[in-house]
Amino acid sequence: MKPTEIGSRQAGYDRRDFQSYQKNMKTISKTAKMQSTVLDAKRRGRMIAFVPTMGALHEGHLSLVRKANKLADIVVVSIFVNPTQFGQSEDLSKYPQSLDEDKRCLRKLDVDYLFLPDEAEMYPDGYVTYVEAGKITSILEGASRPTHFRGVTTIVAKLFNIVQPDVALFGQKDAQQALVLRRMVKDLNIPVKLIVAPTVREKSGLAMSSRNRYFDGEQLNRAACIFQGLKEARKLIRSGEADCGKIVAAIRKKIRQTKGTEIDYISINDTETLDPIKRVSGKVLISVAVRLDGVRLIDNIIV
Amino acid sequence: MKPTEIGSRQAGYDRRDFQSYQKNMKTISKTAKMQSTVLDAKRRGRMIAFVPTMGALHEGHLSLVRKANKLADIVVVSIFVNPTQFGQSEDLSKYPQSLDEDKRCLRKLDVDYLFLPDEAEMYPDGYVTYVEAGKITSILEGASRPTHFRGVTTIVAKLFNIVQPDVALFGQKDAQQALVLRRMVKDLNIPVKLIVAPTVREKSGLAMSSRNRYFDGEQLNRAACIFQGLKEARKLIRSGEADCGKIVAAIRKKIRQTKGTEIDYISINDTETLDPIKRVSGKVLISVAVRLDGVRLIDNIIV
Repeated sequence: MKPTEIGSRQAGYDRRDFQSYQKNMKTISKTAKMQSTVLDAKRRGRMIAFVPTMGALHEGHLSLVRKANKLADIVVVSIFVNPTQFGQSEDLSKYPQSLDEDKRCLRKLDVDYLFLPDEAEMYPDGYVTYVEAGKITSILEGASRPTHFRGVTTIVAKLFNIVQPDVALFGQKDAQQALVLRRMVKDLNIPVKLIVAPTVREKSGLAMSSRNRYFDGEQLNRAACIFQGLKEARKLIRSGEADCGKIVAAIRKKIRQTKGTEIDYISINDTETLDPIKRVSGKVLISVAVRLDGVRLIDNIIV
Repeated sequence: MKPTEIGSRQAGYDRRDFQSYQKNMKTISKTAKMQSTVLDAKRRGRMIAFVPTMGALHEGHLSLVRKANKLADIVVVSIFVNPTQFGQSEDLSKYPQSLDEDKRCLRKLDVDYLFLPDEAEMYPDGYVTYVEAGKITSILEGASRPTHFRGVTTIVAKLFNIVQPDVALFGQKDAQQALVLRRMVKDLNIPVKLIVAPTVREKSGLAMSSRNRYFDGEQLNRAACIFQGLKEARKLIRSGEADCGKIVAAIRKKIRQTKGTEIDYISINDTETLDPIKRVSGKVLISVAVRLDGVRLIDNIIV
């Protein structure tokens, strides 16, 4: 090999490094290494912001990472498709993955650490411990996915212990998840501030979701019916409609008009307790779960 | 009031301070205050050792506190009679208390913080979250007290989040509790080192316990039969007996000879998995639960 070849190759690598990697993001796959890294940083007074994800990152995730960068000295993002929050008949094995692309996005956003454990690292042989957060985990998403929130609270409790964040960021798209995690953090006295950021949407109004990757353009257009239904409900409430039966019926009509949809639930609930509501008086959470061509999508608005 | 009176009174207070209080132990009753205090200390690089108790302190607890003092910069002791680890028919309401005496002992041992929350502080209205550590919580003590370990893992998870210890100390008398907590700490990736210290015993061999306060001298003498049974078992094993049925029978005989005893269980188990053992080959945990005049006592040895 000629010296010039080596030279040009190195130059090529360098250029790519400087273009894409503003910071030298470190990828850590071991819990012990991740934990000792952040504990060292905290002993030196550093603040840590954390965005837990299952990868297949979209603009919703990236908006959380940008916010995290403004809030702390060190930003940690985790990518772990958590098996304990998927039911047996769910899409764990085909959950979308795009690790190389995800890493590129996170490097561009100046993330300090990507925590990327595998399943054996998070749930080693003999694993038995679960965190359960009571009644609010058994309605809405919990009714459709009975062990889902037990998986969510458990993995988030573990990740909080591993990453030791001062602040952690979640999306409002998973409204019930945010409430369940607030409950867990309060009940277990976990010293972390939770920030729930607004749902990021496509131009069509469709909530950004990793599962949108299952769709082509035509399907994405149809999926927009969910948010159209929610907007319809908002319009009704703002024009004085208080009967939740009628509001739900309007959303149902909008979604049923669209080919390939199968409604799992449409529900109006208290924004804190998630108690079901019959007549709108104060703020309410309107949430929807729909299968489109077999792919399960959720969305919600607070009115 | 004459100046001399003020002077002598102040002098009196000062003298008492210097006699009993080597250090100015602070008592904290609020979780937020306790947590911010230790988080501040940790940011300044301090190491924290923690001894959780239910009060009615005896030499077993105090030996843990002395050890804690050697291991860290700051020693926190909690006193909280945790309702969630007592069954409905158990002795929660009459659990022994001796707060003034406990405080005196802890001050003498240079404890930095006594964390002394009340029930409303630890389990406020709307509390729903529990930590469960699986199979090993449903045998031995867990079989006799079905929700006991759920209460233990939950309160210890909470206390660890509030006190943020680098090291936490427990007694070997509660052998199964120590194993369950090790499991939880490992599974949930809690960054704390658990130290399990040997059981401290009376001269008679009786394991120190807060519940011993229920007894007079004659009852304490009878209670010593439990450790005598365990010693008998140890002698048998050392002389080559491997049949667990025979070993258990020997303990049972020793305890039954004593007036007022009612055996809950006598069990020989693996020291790690707590799987029941039929023939002794390696190390075993021999554990006993007995009611003496209605008061439930536990003890164990590893042979």
